[in-house]
Amino acid sequence: MSGKKGILERLDEGVVIGDGGFVFALEKRGYVKAGPWTPEASVENPEAVRQLHREFLRAGSDVMQAFTFYASDDKLANRGNYASEKLTCAGINSASCALAHEVAAEGDALVAGGISQTPSYLSGAGKEAVQAQFKTQLDEFVKNKVDFLVCEYFEHIEEMEWAIEEACKTGLPVGSTMCIGPEGDLHGVSTGDCAVRMANAGSKIVGVHCHFDPMTLLDAMQLVKEGLAKANLNVHMMVQPLAYLTPDASKQGFIDLPEFPFSLEPRILTRWDCHAYARRAYDMGIRYIGGCCGFEPYHIRAVAEELAEERGKLPEGHNKHDMWGDGLKMHTKPWVRARASREYWETLKPASGRPYCSAYSKSDAWGVTQGDEILHQRKEATEDSEIAALQKFEKA
Amino acid sequence: MSGKKGILERLDEGVVIGDGGFVFALEKRGYVKAGPWTPEASVENPEAVRQLHREFLRAGSDVMQAFTFYASDDKLANRGNYASEKLTCAGINSASCALAHEVAAEGDALVAGGISQTPSYLSGAGKEAVQAQFKTQLDEFVKNKVDFLVCEYFEHIEEMEWAIEEACKTGLPVGSTMCIGPEGDLHGVSTGDCAVRMANAGSKIVGVHCHFDPMTLLDAMQLVKEGLAKANLNVHMMVQPLAYLTPDASKQGFIDLPEFPFSLEPRILTRWDCHAYARRAYDMGIRYIGGCCGFEPYHIRAVAEELAEERGKLPEGHNKHDMWGDGLKMHTKPWVRARASREYWETLKPASGRPYCSAYSKSDAWGVTQGDEILHQRKEATEDSEIAALQKFEKA
Amino acid sequence: MSGKKGILERLDEGVVIGDGGFVFALEKRGYVKAGPWTPEASVENPEAVRQLHREFLRAGSDVMQAFTFYASDDKLANRGNYASEKLTCAGINSASCALAHEVAAEGDALVAGGISQTPSYLSGAGKEAVQAQFKTQLDEFVKNKVDFLVCEYFEHIEEMEWAIEEACKTGLPVGSTMCIGPEGDLHGVSTGDCAVRMANAGSKIVGVHCHFDPMTLLDAMQLVKEGLAKANLNVHMMVQPLAYLTPDASKQGFIDLPEFPFSLEPRILTRWDCHAYARRAYDMGIRYIGGCCGFEPYHIRAVAEELAEERGKLPEGHNKHDMWGDGLKMHTKPWVRARASREYWETLKPASGRPYCSAYSKSDAWGVTQGDEILHQRKEATEDSEIAALQKFEKA
Amino acid sequence: MSGKKGILERLDEGVVIGDGGFVFALEKRGYVKAGPWTPEASVENPEAVRQLHREFLRAGSDVMQAFTFYASDDKLANRGNYASEKLTCAGINSASCALAHEVAAEGDALVAGGISQTPSYLSGAGKEAVQAQFKTQLDEFVKNKVDFLVCEYFEHIEEMEWAIEEACKTGLPVGSTMCIGPEGDLHGVSTGDCAVRMANAGSKIVGVHCHFDPMTLLDAMQLVKEGLAKANLNVHMMVQPLAYLTPDASKQGFIDLPEFPFSLEPRILTRWDCHAYARRAYDMGIRYIGGCCGFEPYHIRAVAEELAEERGKLPEGHNKHDMWGDGLKMHTKPWVRARASREYWETLKPASGRPYCSAYSKSDAWGVTQGDEILHQRKEATEDSEIAALQKFEKA
Repeated sequence: MSGKKGILERLDEGVVIGDGGFVFALEKRGYVKAGPWTPEASVENPEAVRQLHREFLRAGSDVMQAFTFYASDDKLANRGNYASEKLTCAGINSASCALAHEVAAEGDALVAGGISQTPSYLSGAGKEAVQAQFKTQLDEFVKNKVDFLVCEYFEHIEEMEWAIEEACKTGLPVGSTMCIGPEGDLHGVSTGDCAVRMANAGSKIVGVHCHFDPMTLLDAMQLVKEGLAKANLNVHMMVQPLAYLTPDASKQGFIDLPEFPFSLEPRILTRWDCHAYARRAYDMGIRYIGGCCGFEPYHIRAVAEELAEERGKLPEGHNKHDMWGDGLKMHTKPWVRARASREYWETLKPASGRPYCSAYSKSDAWGVTQGDEILHQRKEATEDSEIAALQKFEKA
Repeated sequence: MSGKKGILERLDEGVVIGDGGFVFALEKRGYVKAGPWTPEASVENPEAVRQLHREFLRAGSDVMQAFTFYASDDKLANRGNYASEKLTCAGINSASCALAHEVAAEGDALVAGGISQTPSYLSGAGKEAVQAQFKTQLDEFVKNKVDFLVCEYFEHIEEMEWAIEEACKTGLPVGSTMCIGPEGDLHGVSTGDCAVRMANAGSKIVGVHCHFDPMTLLDAMQLVKEGLAKANLNVHMMVQPLAYLTPDASKQGFIDLPEFPFSLEPRILTRWDCHAYARRAYDMGIRYIGGCCGFEPYHIRAVAEELAEERGKLPEGHNKHDMWGDGLKMHTKPWVRARASREYWETLKPASGRPYCSAYSKSDAWGVTQGDEILHQRKEATEDSEIAALQKFEKA
Repeated sequence: MSGKKGILERLDEGVVIGDGGFVFALEKRGYVKAGPWTPEASVENPEAVRQLHREFLRAGSDVMQAFTFYASDDKLANRGNYASEKLTCAGINSASCALAHEVAAEGDALVAGGISQTPSYLSGAGKEAVQAQFKTQLDEFVKNKVDFLVCEYFEHIEEMEWAIEEACKTGLPVGSTMCIGPEGDLHGVSTGDCAVRMANAGSKIVGVHCHFDPMTLLDAMQLVKEGLAKANLNVHMMVQPLAYLTPDASKQGFIDLPEFPFSLEPRILTRWDCHAYARRAYDMGIRYIGGCCGFEPYHIRAVAEELAEERGKLPEGHNKHDMWGDGLKMHTKPWVRARASREYWETLKPASGRPYCSAYSKSDAWGVTQGDEILHQRKEATEDSEIAALQKFEKA
Repeated sequence: MSGKKGILERLDEGVVIGDGGFVFALEKRGYVKAGPWTPEASVENPEAVRQLHREFLRAGSDVMQAFTFYASDDKLANRGNYASEKLTCAGINSASCALAHEVAAEGDALVAGGISQTPSYLSGAGKEAVQAQFKTQLDEFVKNKVDFLVCEYFEHIEEMEWAIEEACKTGLPVGSTMCIGPEGDLHGVSTGDCAVRMANAGSKIVGVHCHFDPMTLLDAMQLVKEGLAKANLNVHMMVQPLAYLTPDASKQGFIDLPEFPFSLEPRILTRWDCHAYARRAYDMGIRYIGGCCGFEPYHIRAVAEELAEERGKLPEGHNKHDMWGDGLKMHTKPWVRARASREYWETLKPASGRPYCSAYSKSDAWGVTQGDEILHQRKEATEDSEIAALQKFEKA
C-alpha cells in the first residue's frame, strides 16, 4: 500500500481501469462452477487465479480486485454447495487477498476487496444478520490491508446501504455499484435515487455494473449522473458492464435471458465494442471504467488502448496487439492484410453464422424479488422434483 | 515417455481427446500477436503457456501439443515480425517441448510436436528448401523426446507429403491434418484423395482441422472416410475443427470471412455445440477428436463429458461442471434453476443480441494460392501504401 | 347516404373497420407511381380503383374512403409530377367519390373523403393559402355527398388544426389522425397534446395512422387515450397503422427506413399479426380500427375475423378463408393439414429466408421539418446533380 | 389467335414473359381459399380474375394463362371442398378461358391452358384414369381455342409424361414445368433426366417452376440445360419460380416450410430480387421467364424492366414506375430523393423488422410421396381428431 497513490487520488487525476469478471472467466478455464459461482479456487487452484490477475494487469487494469465474489458464509453453504464444509469465508478471502497483492506488486495496481448481496437478505434476515455476514469479509480485508473496498452486485438499495454503512466503518475508501439498469432497483427505486442514496451512505465512487451490456449500463449511468447532479453530490462515477450484448434483457438483466449462463457466446463483445464503450464512458465523465462477467483480458486491453492518449500510456499487453488490428499487416494472406485499418473494424457488422437463431430472446420475467418466499435460501440441494415443478411453473 | 501407452495403441483401444488452439486462446490472454501468430510466448511468458496446457489437461485432453505453431525460421522472420531477431526456431521449440512435458507429467497425457505450412512453400521454394525448414523443428522434437508428431495446417497436399516424408524419417508415429473442408485442397485435389495421399505418405492418423466449424469438417471427414475405404487404407482418423461457426465460409475457410480474426465472437461455439460435435465424430468412427482455433478448455471438457461413457472416465475439471448444466440447481433464482436440464440446453437456439447484424457474411474469395506472386513472403514490414492498394483491389 | 347509420352512431354502437392503404396497394398493381404517390388512377383506370374498393368491402371494411390522397392542386404539380397538366384536384376528387359510392352501395358501407398535408404548408405558406387547398377538396366532397370527413397524414398539429377547422365548416362529422408515433409531432408537441388539440379543434374521432407498425401506433394511442382522459374529452378513438413492422424506425417513421419504399417486403405483417393488432386495439377501447400503407384486403379480413364476435358477423370474403387456417384441412399433404390450428399460427416465428440481412436498419434521421428550406416544394423536376448532392449530404 | 405469332415463334425470336401465380394473389384479394386452392373464382367473381389478368398484361406478361389451376374434377371434390357440388371442371375451364382471351385481346398476349397433378395419381389410380382427368380439361382448352398448353406442377416425371402425352394429342404446342428443384423428382429421378424425359415426351418448352425461389430454380435450370445438352435435345427452356425466398427449403420446397402458406411474408421478393432473377435467367439462355406463387404484377414488371433492352420495349405499367426507383426524385423528403439510384437499391440488404425471428426454418421433411397411403385423396372433410393425430405424428 505504502507509496502507492490511493484510489480517490487516482480518480481525481485521471481514469482508472478496472478488471474483468473472474467467475465467468474461471468457469471457462475450469476452476469455478456455474450455479453457485463461489471463489474457492483461490484456495484450491491459486495458480489459475494468479494467472488471471496477471493477464488483467498486463491488459491495463489498475485494480486487482481480490477474488472474493459470493464468499460470504451463507452463500458458501447454499443449496447443496458443500464448499462450506471444507472452506470458510475467512480462509477464502485471506487467500484471495494474498494473490491480489502478489500480482498488484508486479505493477502499480491497487488491491480492492469486494462484498456483495447475501442469501440472508433475500431470505428476510434483518439488518443485523446481514451486516454480520459483511463484517466477516470486511475484517479479512482490513487484516489483509486492501487499498479500498467495493460494495457490488446488490439488486436492492436497502441492502446496499447496509453494506456501505458497514464498509465505511473500516475507514477505507468505499466504491459501490448496483447490478441494475435504467429501470431501477428490484424494489422499484429509480436508478438516480439509488445513486444518491449510495453517495449519502458514504460511498465516494458510485455507479452500476454487471447484468447489462455497456450501452444499457451507460444509459443507466446517465441517470446516475443526473441524479447526483440534482442532489449536488460530488462523487466519482464507476461502471463495470457485462461483455455480453443484452438489448433484449428485462429488468433483472442477463440472468433472465434464456441463454444465461451456458449459451451466451453469440452475445460476446468484440474488442471494438469495448473501444466504443470506453469512449462513451469517458466522455460522460466516468473515471472508473472496468468490466464484469464476460470481460476477458483482451476486452480490458481494448479499453486501455482506446484511452491511451488520456492516460498517456499503453499497457504491457499492447506489445502483443497493434492498434486497430494493425498487426494484420504481417499476415501471410493479402486479403487479410487489407483488413488492417480502423475504419474496417469500426464499421464491420459481424455475422453470427447462426441462421436458425434470432437476434432477440424472450426474457424470463417472473417479477419476484426480496420479499417473495420462493427466493428464500436453504442449505439442502435442489431435488429433481423441485426442478420439474419450476419448469411447469415457468410455462404457466 | 517411458511407461505410457503410445498414441497408436491408445487409438486402437478407444478415443483420444486433443487440445484446443493455442494461438487464439493466448491472443485473448495477451501473449500472442494476431497477424504473425507466432509462439514466442513459450520463451517470453512460460507461465501463461504452462497454465493453458494445464487447463486443457484438466478439461480432458490426452495430448499436450507443444506450442510450436508457425515456429519455422522463415515464418518468424516474415513481413516485419522481428521475433527472429531475438529468438530462433530451435529455441522456441525446445522451450515449448519442456512446458508440454512438464504438464503432461501431471496426468497421463502424451506430448506431440507439430509442423505446419511454410512461407518458403508459398514463395515457390522447392522441396529441399521446404524440408530443411521442417527438419530444424523435427530435430528439436526428437531431441526433446516427444511421443509423436503432427503435420498440420497444410493447404496443399504437395507440401503435406513433403512434411510427412520428413517427419517419418524420425521413426516417430505421424498424424496429419490438412486445413481444408469438403471442397479439397487449394490446388484442386479432392478431400478424399488428400486423405489417401497422406496415408500413402506414411501418416498413421489422417484427417482435417482448423479453417471450418465442426459440422463442415465432419462433412469433409465423411469424404476422408470414403476415400480411405475405397483405397483399402486402414489408418486412424483425426479431426480438430474451429470453435467458430462458418456455414458461410468459402474454400479457404474462416480466414476469408470478413470477421477474421477480430470479430468472430458471435460465431463462438457453445459447450452444447461441442457435445453434438463429439457425438457425431465418434459415431463416424473418428478416434482422435480435438479442437483448433477458438477452442477453450470448457469446449474440450464438453467433448470429454459427451464421451464419458465411451471413455469410462471424466476429467478433473468436471468437478467444476455438472453434466448438462446440472450445477444450476444451486442457483439462487428459481427460474435459473428451471434451466437445469439436458433438454433445455440441447434445444435452445441462442439469440445474438445483435439486431443490426446478419447471420451470414460474404466471404472474401480471391482465388489465389501457391503459385501466385501476391503470396510470396518477405522480411520487410508491409507499408501503408501497400495496404491501401490491397483495399482498392478488394473492392474491384 | 339516406337510410344508412352515420359514422358516429356506428362508433357509439360498436366497432367500425376501416380499409387499407390505396397508394401502396395500387403501386404494386401498376396504377400509382411511388414518389409522387398521387391518385390520378381514379380517372385513368377506374376499374382498378373500383376493384380494390370492392376487395376491402368483401374483407369487412365499413368505410370506403374515396381515393383522394395527396390530390391537392399543389401536390399534383410538385417536382416534375405533370399530373396537374392533364388533371385537376376537383376532377380527381369527383371521380374518386363516384367510385367509392358505387362500391359502398354494394354493401352497407359509408363513404369518407380525406384531406392531408400540403406542400404549401411545408413551404411556409400561411394559414389562408393552406386552407384554400383544403377547401377545393372539401367542396368536392360536399358536392359528392360523402358521409364524413377524415383529416389525415399530418405531421404538424398546427396544419392539422387548420384542416379540422376548414373541414368542420362543412357540417359533416370529422375524424382526424396524425402520422406520428409516441414521440409526438415534428415540431415537438407531445402525442397526448396533439390528441387534445384535435378534439378541441372539432374532431369527433381522433388518433394516429400510417408511418409506424401496429404495436408502435398502439403505444401512441395509449398516450392519445391518456391525454383525452386527462382533458376530460369524450371523443372516439381511431387508428390505422402500416402493415410493415417498424421497431427500428425513428421519429418520422418508415419513410426514414432505408428500405422505404421499394424493399419493405420482409417487414410485411402476416394475417396473424393483424389478429393481435385488432385484439389489442379493441381492448384499449379504440372503435375505428383500420389500416394504412401495406394493408391488403386479407389484412383487413383478419381484423374482421378477430372481431367477429364483437361485431356479430363475418365479412363476405370469409367464405374464402376459414378461421385460423382451418382451410388447410383440405390440403393434399398431411403435414400441411397438421398446421390447421390457432396455436400453430399464433406462436410461429416466421423466418425471413434472408441470412445476409439483419433484423434492424439504421434509420435516416435528418431532423429537418417544416421551417427548413430544404423541404420547400417546387414545380420543376429534381435534377441528377441535386440527387448527387443529397447523397453526399446523407453521408456527411 | 389468328394473326398473332405463336409461342414457339416468339421464343425463337426473343424472350417471352409469363405471368404470376393466380391462386396466391387471389387468396390475398379474397377470392381463393388456401388449402384447396381451386379456381372457382372464374365463375363466381369473374371481375376479380379479369382485373388480375389485366394487371399482368400491363406489367409486361406476354401470356395470359387461363385460371384453371387444380380444376380437375377429382381435385374439386377433395377433402370437403364442395366446389364440385356447384361447379364442374368443364364449366370453370371454359369461364377461365373466356376471361384470358378477353384480356389478351387488349394487348398482344397469347392464351395458355394449363393442367397439373391430380389426386388420382397420388391415390394410385393408373395411367388411364389420370389421363381421363387431363382430357376433360384439354377438351375445354381446344374448344376455347387456347394458343398453347402448359403441363405444370407435377412432382413425378411419370405423371408428367402422361400429361404431355395427352396434351400432345391436341396438336397444340406444349410447354412443361415440374415443381422440383436441383434434387430431382419425388421418386428420385434427377432434374436433368426429368428435362430429357419431358422433351422426349413431346414438350417443346421444358423447365421447372413453383416450390422454390428464383436462385434455387435457376440452379435446377442449370441441370436442365446440361441434361438437354448432353442428350442433344434442342428445345426451349422455361422457368417460373416463387416470389418467396426459400434457401432453407428441403426437397418438396416451400410447402414443407413451417411458414407455408400463411406466414411467408418475410420471404417475399423485392422488385430488385426480380431484376437479378431475370438477368441471370436470360443470360443462361432461358427464353420463357415468368413467375408463380407470390409473384404480383410489380414483380413481373421488374422482369420486363430488366429485359427492356433485349425486348426493345417497356410495358404499359412502366408509366407508373421509373427505372430503378427514379420516381423518388419527385418525393417531398430530400433524404428519400437521395435513394433514387440503381446502386442504392441493388446493394441494399433489407432488414426484416423481426428481431425475434430467425433467417432459416427447419423444413418439414416427411419423406412420403406417391405410393404412400397417407397421401391418398378422399371426398370427406378432414376431422379434428385426424388433425390431432397428424400433429402428434409430426412431433414424433
